[in-house]
Amino acid sequence: MSEIKIVVAGPRGRMGREALQLVKNTEHFTLVGAIDHKYGGKKVSEIEGLPNLDAPIYTDIEACFSELQPDVLIDLTTPEVGRVHTEIALQYGVRPVVGTTGFSKEDLETLSKLAEEKGIGAIIAPNFAIGAILMMKFSQMAAKYFQDIEIIELHHDKKLDAPSGTAAKTAELISTVRESKKQGHPEEKEIMQGARGATYDGIHIHSVRLPGLIAHQEVLFGGNGQMLSIRHDSFNRESFMSGVKLAVETIMKIDLLVYGLENIIE
Amino acid sequence: MSEIKIVVAGPRGRMGREALQLVKNTEHFTLVGAIDHKYGGKKVSEIEGLPNLDAPIYTDIEACFSELQPDVLIDLTTPEVGRVHTEIALQYGVRPVVGTTGFSKEDLETLSKLAEEKGIGAIIAPNFAIGAILMMKFSQMAAKYFQDIEIIELHHDKKLDAPSGTAAKTAELISTVRESKKQGHPEEKEIMQGARGATYDGIHIHSVRLPGLIAHQEVLFGGNGQMLSIRHDSFNRESFMSGVKLAVETIMKIDLLVYGLENIIE
Amino acid sequence: MSEIKIVVAGPRGRMGREALQLVKNTEHFTLVGAIDHKYGGKKVSEIEGLPNLDAPIYTDIEACFSELQPDVLIDLTTPEVGRVHTEIALQYGVRPVVGTTGFSKEDLETLSKLAEEKGIGAIIAPNFAIGAILMMKFSQMAAKYFQDIEIIELHHDKKLDAPSGTAAKTAELISTVRESKKQGHPEEKEIMQGARGATYDGIHIHSVRLPGLIAHQEVLFGGNGQMLSIRHDSFNRESFMSGVKLAVETIMKIDLLVYGLENIIE
Amino acid sequence: MSEIKIVVAGPRGRMGREALQLVKNTEHFTLVGAIDHKYGGKKVSEIEGLPNLDAPIYTDIEACFSELQPDVLIDLTTPEVGRVHTEIALQYGVRPVVGTTGFSKEDLETLSKLAEEKGIGAIIAPNFAIGAILMMKFSQMAAKYFQDIEIIELHHDKKLDAPSGTAAKTAELISTVRESKKQGHPEEKEIMQGARGATYDGIHIHSVRLPGLIAHQEVLFGGNGQMLSIRHDSFNRESFMSGVKLAVETIMKIDLLVYGLENIIE
Repeated sequence: MSEIKIVVAGPRGRMGREALQLVKNTEHFTLVGAIDHKYGGKKVSEIEGLPNLDAPIYTDIEACFSELQPDVLIDLTTPEVGRVHTEIALQYGVRPVVGTTGFSKEDLETLSKLAEEKGIGAIIAPNFAIGAILMMKFSQMAAKYFQDIEIIELHHDKKLDAPSGTAAKTAELISTVRESKKQGHPEEKEIMQGARGATYDGIHIHSVRLPGLIAHQEVLFGGNGQMLSIRHDSFNRESFMSGVKLAVETIMKIDLLVYGLENIIE
Repeated sequence: MSEIKIVVAGPRGRMGREALQLVKNTEHFTLVGAIDHKYGGKKVSEIEGLPNLDAPIYTDIEACFSELQPDVLIDLTTPEVGRVHTEIALQYGVRPVVGTTGFSKEDLETLSKLAEEKGIGAIIAPNFAIGAILMMKFSQMAAKYFQDIEIIELHHDKKLDAPSGTAAKTAELISTVRESKKQGHPEEKEIMQGARGATYDGIHIHSVRLPGLIAHQEVLFGGNGQMLSIRHDSFNRESFMSGVKLAVETIMKIDLLVYGLENIIE
Repeated sequence: MSEIKIVVAGPRGRMGREALQLVKNTEHFTLVGAIDHKYGGKKVSEIEGLPNLDAPIYTDIEACFSELQPDVLIDLTTPEVGRVHTEIALQYGVRPVVGTTGFSKEDLETLSKLAEEKGIGAIIAPNFAIGAILMMKFSQMAAKYFQDIEIIELHHDKKLDAPSGTAAKTAELISTVRESKKQGHPEEKEIMQGARGATYDGIHIHSVRLPGLIAHQEVLFGGNGQMLSIRHDSFNRESFMSGVKLAVETIMKIDLLVYGLENIIE
Repeated sequence: MSEIKIVVAGPRGRMGREALQLVKNTEHFTLVGAIDHKYGGKKVSEIEGLPNLDAPIYTDIEACFSELQPDVLIDLTTPEVGRVHTEIALQYGVRPVVGTTGFSKEDLETLSKLAEEKGIGAIIAPNFAIGAILMMKFSQMAAKYFQDIEIIELHHDKKLDAPSGTAAKTAELISTVRESKKQGHPEEKEIMQGARGATYDGIHIHSVRLPGLIAHQEVLFGGNGQMLSIRHDSFNRESFMSGVKLAVETIMKIDLLVYGLENIIE
């Protein structure tokens, strides 16, 4: 493959560091620069804890783009900053791969038009773990054949919200292809309140929280005499990087904005 | 081992049939008779669907015991009938292995005394699946070292109550050795109600109901950087029979009433 | 849906009985007849152990088809008989749903042409468990993104061959989309012979055999910081019937021979 | 609990760092010193990457013990160094908790006698993950009731040897309580070589190696109509620290040498 010139925004964050590592370890990826609100003028290798890469750090994104003319921006900053960065990247003809959430429908429409005008690709994805994306995709496919579905998600006990965003998203995706139904015995009773979990359009969702765990989810499909289960275990942040890699490679070949990694996975 | 002469009460029920099969397949077990409210005077082999065993059927339990002088009664009838049978058995010096629930504290005390007087063993157990018993026993042991515990039980969708009796029993047993604690993030929020399941003394319990499933339970223990899980799958009624076999063999060597199979398992 | 008139061949076999039950329980399915080498002239309901259905039994398949003019033949006999039945069915314009294996390439070509000539559908499938089919399909899809794959299949200990046909088929399907690779540490050593299992095109396969189990398979995909697993549990023979139902419904809408249920699943 | 004064040997290793963290986070543990072949005279807090603890570093273990008079030595060095440290500790009346392997039978006997003479406790354990220890202990207990057993261990693909030490140890422990038996169908055939895994005294062992995984093991027990499974997932090195904590607390109350954490777990 031919070389892809990359700028990473947010290089000191936990995801940003992983992205630098990814670029470093991928033969046809080259880090040409980084964007950070600090350390302008320094090199990546000069910042403690970052990999030994020679690329310069910019605090001004426009200067960065006009001087370096990168192919791709990998943005792993915050929702607000990410939105601004994405727009500027498109204006400069730089393809954005964005890992933040918080884009409104209007934002996406505006950015979509901009990508079209410029004739370049853009990928915005709240989740880059390919395994999780496949789990959701397969769940949606299986729901055509198995209408009784329960989701168990398991996370560390530092997690505040239950269920997880991925569990809610999975249920939502399933409900677009499955007719709503009440599951379980028509007259089932909860002897202890909450035993049957939460429900979303009839799909039951159970949230386990235990110290030691990381991020895990299992989708169970029951049918006559059988069960199909699809499980994803995310053991660490590296799990996101294969998705970022796929996004960077894909974005060079498309000329529109794609929202959600599931839409570039066959 | 020396021969054990057995009478089965409730031979036409689903558990009763399995018990007949067990006796037939175990070399040192001999079926000498059966107790049924129908078919008095016939032989077991004459009843459709029962195994080819020559033993006579009695409707009168006392006649059965005085004529046959069996070693053991395996009772798989109903709670009411089971209670009466157990008492009569003890009076006749027949060791009872009883698989029904519904004995009150007083019943157990009375029967206990009777067993002591007669100097013979008696075993009453609501659950004969050794695997399930071990799951509970191990859970209780593990709870000394791992205080964060969640139970997931999974059953077919014909089940009316949630959680299952086994899940409730497991939580109860754990709570006798573990100090009560609130698990999860101190400020955790259920975005969808019920997501975190039911709680018993701080232990979370989740009940999954799906067609195709049979009876399954998993107890999860989370700690620093690790998880320990203990799971039992019951695929069919046969799972109870190894427990009945163990009870029959044990009852010949003890001289008191034991309630719960866990108390004869080391 | 409009009524579908069905003949079942092999009604007394274990799969045949399940098929009769399926037809009985499905509103728009009607059993018009059965084919058996015994009991010609009797009704299904007269044979012990079969469901209470009025349909006549034929020993002569041609008489059956010309008199009853069914829409569909569900054939659950033996490979040899099944092949003959399939051909006759197509000649009589009866759509065959065939659950036996053992068709040669030539057989399939001949039957394919015949189906085309007659302009009717035919489905031959060695495996009707939709869950297992989906497991294989998803595995093939996942293999594009995760190249490190291991298969664990678990069966009762009466099973003679290891690995199971489904495991071998899964590995074969995966190998059509994944480049062959050696997995594990390049210099890995088996301290005990066989520990790393069998390999098929670099995919490792492990066969577990335990009493109590039925038929289970898990396909594990490992990648950076994550694992994706797809599991199918077959608890009893009923698991095949949702696939037979799907095949009967699909066959009314197609006009060619399809081999393998995976080809009618989207 | 009263304060326990601790010295850590090997503070810069991966386990050593975790141990420092443990001591720091445990209220009644106090780090009074560290032993390292470098940095003598500095403080722990002065070494990059180590927690902010004031304790002095010694290169000479005897000076350390005579000046600080600690209660406990946590040794996480190498087998050779660990052996020497353990002996010196006992001679100085310091209770050793040792996490290295490589002690010979003779070493253990000598150290055992020394502990007895001095009337103090000592704990040497090749594995401090309590969850793994419990998995082995429960497996041994379950093997009395379920004789058909298979072990599946799953590790990252950087692991050289198969099966893992823990899997081999588990099989060995089980074989001390279970009669040797040939499992599976008496005439089972491996259609692909290695499918049935390795065997140890009839117990089958399967080793899965996949990128992304860490260290996991499952022990499966099959019986009539049921399966019992015990699984341990080790997600990171922290999993060892609860075992070290338990060892430190226990060692204060015993007056002999214990080999293997399983022997201080009830």
